[in-house]
Amino acid sequence: MSAIRHALSIKREDDFAKWYQEVISAADMAEESGVRGCMVIKPWGFGIWERMQRLLDDRIKAAGVQNAYFPLFIPLANFEREAAHVEGFAKEMAVVTHHRLIADGDGGLIPDPEAKLEEPLVVRPTSETIIGDAMSRWVQSWRDLPLKLNQWANVVRWEMRTRMFLRTSEFLWQEGHTAHADEAEARVETMRALEMYRAFAEEDAAIPVIAGEKPENERFPGARETWSIEAMMQDGKALQAGTSHYLGTSFAEAANIRYQNREGGQELCHTVSWGMSTRMVGGLIMTHGDDDGLRVPPALAPFQIVILPMLRGKPEDAALLDYCEGLHAGLAGQSALGEPLRVLLDTRPGKAAGKRWDWVRKGAPIILEVGSRDMENGVVSMLRRDALWNAETGKPAFQNPARETAIDTISSILSDMQSGLFAEARERRDANITREIDNMEGLAEFFGEDRRYPGWAEVQWSKPTGEGLKAVEEQLKALKLTFRNVPMNTPPADGTCIFTGAPAVERIYVARAY
Amino acid sequence: MSAIRHALSIKREDDFAKWYQEVISAADMAEESGVRGCMVIKPWGFGIWERMQRLLDDRIKAAGVQNAYFPLFIPLANFEREAAHVEGFAKEMAVVTHHRLIADGDGGLIPDPEAKLEEPLVVRPTSETIIGDAMSRWVQSWRDLPLKLNQWANVVRWEMRTRMFLRTSEFLWQEGHTAHADEAEARVETMRALEMYRAFAEEDAAIPVIAGEKPENERFPGARETWSIEAMMQDGKALQAGTSHYLGTSFAEAANIRYQNREGGQELCHTVSWGMSTRMVGGLIMTHGDDDGLRVPPALAPFQIVILPMLRGKPEDAALLDYCEGLHAGLAGQSALGEPLRVLLDTRPGKAAGKRWDWVRKGAPIILEVGSRDMENGVVSMLRRDALWNAETGKPAFQNPARETAIDTISSILSDMQSGLFAEARERRDANITREIDNMEGLAEFFGEDRRYPGWAEVQWSKPTGEGLKAVEEQLKALKLTFRNVPMNTPPADGTCIFTGAPAVERIYVARAY
Repeated sequence: MSAIRHALSIKREDDFAKWYQEVISAADMAEESGVRGCMVIKPWGFGIWERMQRLLDDRIKAAGVQNAYFPLFIPLANFEREAAHVEGFAKEMAVVTHHRLIADGDGGLIPDPEAKLEEPLVVRPTSETIIGDAMSRWVQSWRDLPLKLNQWANVVRWEMRTRMFLRTSEFLWQEGHTAHADEAEARVETMRALEMYRAFAEEDAAIPVIAGEKPENERFPGARETWSIEAMMQDGKALQAGTSHYLGTSFAEAANIRYQNREGGQELCHTVSWGMSTRMVGGLIMTHGDDDGLRVPPALAPFQIVILPMLRGKPEDAALLDYCEGLHAGLAGQSALGEPLRVLLDTRPGKAAGKRWDWVRKGAPIILEVGSRDMENGVVSMLRRDALWNAETGKPAFQNPARETAIDTISSILSDMQSGLFAEARERRDANITREIDNMEGLAEFFGEDRRYPGWAEVQWSKPTGEGLKAVEEQLKALKLTFRNVPMNTPPADGTCIFTGAPAVERIYVARAY
Repeated sequence: MSAIRHALSIKREDDFAKWYQEVISAADMAEESGVRGCMVIKPWGFGIWERMQRLLDDRIKAAGVQNAYFPLFIPLANFEREAAHVEGFAKEMAVVTHHRLIADGDGGLIPDPEAKLEEPLVVRPTSETIIGDAMSRWVQSWRDLPLKLNQWANVVRWEMRTRMFLRTSEFLWQEGHTAHADEAEARVETMRALEMYRAFAEEDAAIPVIAGEKPENERFPGARETWSIEAMMQDGKALQAGTSHYLGTSFAEAANIRYQNREGGQELCHTVSWGMSTRMVGGLIMTHGDDDGLRVPPALAPFQIVILPMLRGKPEDAALLDYCEGLHAGLAGQSALGEPLRVLLDTRPGKAAGKRWDWVRKGAPIILEVGSRDMENGVVSMLRRDALWNAETGKPAFQNPARETAIDTISSILSDMQSGLFAEARERRDANITREIDNMEGLAEFFGEDRRYPGWAEVQWSKPTGEGLKAVEEQLKALKLTFRNVPMNTPPADGTCIFTGAPAVERIYVARAY
C-alpha cells in the first residue's frame, strides 16, 4: 500500500478552517473582493449556486409559490414599527444617506452634501417589512389568500468577521413570504417549507439534515416559531442550512395586512417566511470536500462529466478531437437524475494532467481522459471523483471501459454517486451524535479539548423560558456551545434536564456551530 | 359590425403614456413601491422577466460565457480612476456612508455616527470597474484569454423622474464583461453580443430591432464604440433595448488588466461589455400591447395556456374538473417552440368571465374556457389573444374545437402566434420609417405637432465630431429628437448631410426616444 499524494496541501484533520479556505481557492469557487466583507463568487462556485437555484426554484414553483421582486432599499420607518424585529436587525446594516457624488476639487469624489436623503434608506437585510407593505395592498378578501411569494435576491448584513460563503456582508438567497387566513394554514406552510428544504438538502445536495424547531432564544426576531434544518460538517460543527418562521400576526399588524373574511369581518393575516442562502455552498464544501478538494454531488455539478483529450499540438490531434466529440455527443444525448447530462469537452490550452487535477480539485463527478492509445483501443480512461485513489498503488484509480460502455453506464454511475455521497455523509453524521449525556460534566467532557472534532449531543431539557433560559444559554456559552434544534419525531423525554435538574420535557441538539 | 368594448379604459391612440400605465396595472405586472424610484415587480411581470432571463441565459452560456457574481458595493476610488467613466457616471448614485443604525432616543432610528465608513461605498450603477479588478487578478497569460464573464444583478442609478420598467432607480439586468488579447477579437465579441441581442429580441420577444452603432455623443462613458439594438414602440418612439460596448484598452489600463503574450511580453487586454435589462419588459408592453391589455409572445409567456373551468359550486363541478384535468394533462405533455408547454388550470374562486378578462389583460396567449355544455360535447371554448374579437358581432371570437383537436393543434397555434406578433410589429415599424428626408425643414415637419405618433427618420449625415457634433445635437434637441444608431448593412451615403450640408458619410436613425 503506497502513500497517496493528495491534491491539497492541507488535510481536514490537520486544520479544518485552513482546509476550507484552500478548497475554495483550489476549486476556484470564490475570493475576497477587496470590498469590505463582500466576496466575488467565481464561475465554478456560482455555477453550483445556479444549480441550487434551479432545483430549489422548481420545488418552490411546484408548491404554487410565485416569484416576484421587491426593492433593495427599505425606509427606516419600516424597521421602526415592529419592535422585536428592529431589536434583532437594527444593528449592522448598510445605510444609504446620499444620492449623488461630486468632485472634491482634489481629483477625488465625495458624497454631495446637497444630495442628502431626507430619510436614510437601509439596504435590505431581509424583506419582511417591505413585502408586508405590498401584501397589505394586495390582500383584500379571503379570496386573495393564501398569498405565496418568493424572491431571489442579494441582502446585506454588515459583518465584522467574514468567512467566504458562511458569513459575508452581502449574500445571495431566496426569501419566501406567505400570508394566510388563519394560524392552522400558516403552520402548514411553515412545515411545508421546512420539508422542502429537507428534501432539497438531502436529495439534491446530498446533505443529511435534522429538521426541528429552534428554542426561543434562537428565534428569528419577531417570530412566534423558527424551524431549521441543521447539517453536520466534517469537523463536527453544525450549520443551519435553511429556516422557516411562523410569524403569527405581529408582522401583519405592523404592516396592516388584513382581509375580509367570508362573513364580512376584518381579520389579520398570519404570515410565514422561509429562506436559504449561498451559505449552503459552504455547507456543501464542508460536507463533501476531501483532502483532494471539493466533490460536487452530480445533481448540483455544473458539469457532471469533463472530457480531457490529451492533445499534443500535432496533426494526430484532429482524429483524437473527432473521437472526443463523438464521445461528447453520445454523452450529451443521455440523461441522469431526470435531466440531460451536463458534459464539458475541455480543449483549453494546457497539459491534460494539469487539467485533470484542476477538475479533481473542483470536484467534477467524472473525468474522462482520452489519449491516442485510448482512441486506438476504443476506450476511455475514467476517473470517478468519489473513488479517486487506488489504495494499493497510491495512484489515481482509472478504469478503462469501452467508449460505448462509458456512454451507456454513465447515468447509473452518477445516480450511484449521488446516493453514495449522501449515505457517506449520513453515516458520518450518525456516528458523531451522542444521546448518552445526562449531565453537564458529560457535556463538558464530550466537547472537551481532547476531542478534536466532536459532533452533536442530543440531550433532554426542561425548556425553561425568560431568566431560566438565559442561565442555560450562559452554561452553553461557557462551553462555546449553542442549541441547534428540537428534532421532530423523537421519543418523548423521560429523564431530567441536564441544565436545570428539573423533569425534562423534550430532547434538543447541542453543538458548536458556524 | 358591432362596436367592441375593449378591456382597458384608455386607448393607445388617445393617450399612449396613460395607456402604458394602465396595461401595467391591469395586467398586474408591477407597481410603485413607496420607496423613491423603486418599483415592485409583481408575479406576472416577474414571470415574464424570468422567461427572458432563461432564454437569454441559454444564449449567453451557448457562447461560452460564464456566469459569476460580484459585489453590490463599489469603493469610490474605482470611480475616480477612469476619467471619462467617472464623468459619465459619478452623478446620481446611491452612496452608503454608515454601517449601523441606533435608536435616536425618541422611538426612531438614525445612522450611528460612530459607524461612519472611512470610505463611502457606491451601490453599483454598472460593474466595469469592480469586474476589472477581478480580471486583473485572473488574467496572467494569453492562455487565460478570452475571459468571458456575465452577471445577473440589480443596479442602481438614482433617477428623479421614473417610469415603471423604463426608468427606475433600481433595475435588474445582465452585464457581460469580456477581456481579449487583441482588438480584433474584442470587436468580434462586441458584434457577437449585439447579434445575440438581435436574435433574442426578434426570435424570443418577437420585437423587431435595428442593430447599429451609436454616434460618438451617445457612447457609454469611456467606450471606444457603443452598439445598440433599437426597437420602435407603437407611439413611434425608439427604445434602446440592448447595448454592446467595445471599451478599447482604457478600462484595462485603469484596472491594470495585463497579460503575458506568447513571446513573453506584457500587453494590455481589450475589454468589452454588454447589457440588457428589465427595460425590455417595458418594450414588450409597448410593442405587443393593445387596447385590451398586454399580449405576451408565447416564448415569453409564464403560462401559454390558461384553462378556466366554469365552476358553479355544485356537485357537477367534480366531473368538470376531471374533464379539465384531462385537458391539462394532455396539453402538459405537448411541446411548443422547443420547450414543454406551460399550462395553468385556474381553479381560484371567482366567476369564469371575470377570470377570462384578467387573463386577457395579462396577455396569456390562449384561454380555454370549459363549461358543462363543452364537456358534454367533448369540446373546449378557445380564445386566442392575438385574434380576440369577432369584428362582426363585436364579441370575443371563441372557437370550439374538440378537446383532442385542441391538444393536437396547440403547438402550431403558438408557433403561428409567435411569428404573427413579430410580423405585425415589423410591418408597423417598417411603415413608420421614412428615408425621404433630405433637409432640416423636412425633419421638423415629419416630427411636427400634427403627426401624433411619428416614427423614425433615416437620414444622411456627415458625422462631425467635437464642436460640430455638439451643434448637431442642439439642432436635434430643439426638435426633441435624438440619434438612435447607424444601421448595419445599408447602402453607402450618396447625398448631403441634413445638418451641416457637407457631403454625407453614412445613414443614421433619428427619433424621439424613451
